[in-house]
Amino acid sequence: MSESRTDTEAVELANTAFYEAMERGDFDEISDLWLDDGEGGISCVHPGWPVLTGRGEVLRSYALIMANTDYIQFFLTDVKVSVLADTALVTCTENILSGGPAEEGAELGPLVGQLVVATNVFRRTPDGWRLWSHHGSPVLAESGDDDDLDGADDAPDDA
Amino acid sequence: MSESRTDTEAVELANTAFYEAMERGDFDEISDLWLDDGEGGISCVHPGWPVLTGRGEVLRSYALIMANTDYIQFFLTDVKVSVLADTALVTCTENILSGGPAEEGAELGPLVGQLVVATNVFRRTPDGWRLWSHHGSPVLAESGDDDDLDGADDAPDDA
Repeated sequence: MSESRTDTEAVELANTAFYEAMERGDFDEISDLWLDDGEGGISCVHPGWPVLTGRGEVLRSYALIMANTDYIQFFLTDVKVSVLADTALVTCTENILSGGPAEEGAELGPLVGQLVVATNVFRRTPDGWRLWSHHGSPVLAESGDDDDLDGADDAPDDA
Repeated sequence: MSESRTDTEAVELANTAFYEAMERGDFDEISDLWLDDGEGGISCVHPGWPVLTGRGEVLRSYALIMANTDYIQFFLTDVKVSVLADTALVTCTENILSGGPAEEGAELGPLVGQLVVATNVFRRTPDGWRLWSHHGSPVLAESGDDDDLDGADDAPDDA
């Protein structure tokens, strides 16, 4: 029981490290946190994007995002961790505040708020928990509490 | 090597079964394909929705979607399967054609096309591969081929 509690805590730390690396624009740390390709093809979906697969494509997307982001902060809520053997599933809500590069003379570009939900899959490795998959998507429908599922009437149909 | 090829094929079949059950509106089959709660908390994100967790919340969402969908068809493309021990990661593009309940007197509601990308996580169980997580999201940015990542300039910033 304490074993699995330790696992959950370690996974949550890895998840937090991932977002803190994004906030710092630390490309090397992001690169370290993703699983090696040999251990299972990694995949990544940024909000509104198609699927990216493999370290080349995934890491290039982070380089591009970082080049176009002067400021980004994640306020994580609803973090839930589920561990089964050597795989961990994390879901969370990313309350994002970000700003692009400033116009000439300005200190910072306009700040934009975004509500994104993410599913992050981690694998246990000798070096700690590493990201196997990240899928982030914009929350378009009304959120609200658990009893609010009736709002599903207005949501898009899908599996 | 043939072992892992068999795994990949079995996972792809489970993934296809999931979408075919949606097309048939087969709630019992959908219910069977999701992992039991005891084996790790399941989670589900429909396009534009917040995160749903646990069988109660997830299955209720499918009941609601099915009640509001008279017709739905999935044309899956870019299906990629990655298996690590007892966990499988599937990414695919769901080209969806769907229609809601018909108005009085009409045969079928208006058909709507949607482009959605999904990350599906499966677990190996004695009864076969079962869904641990589904995350679907609308593709908002221009898709295109792999060399089109430069379009990322216009995409939202996120981890």
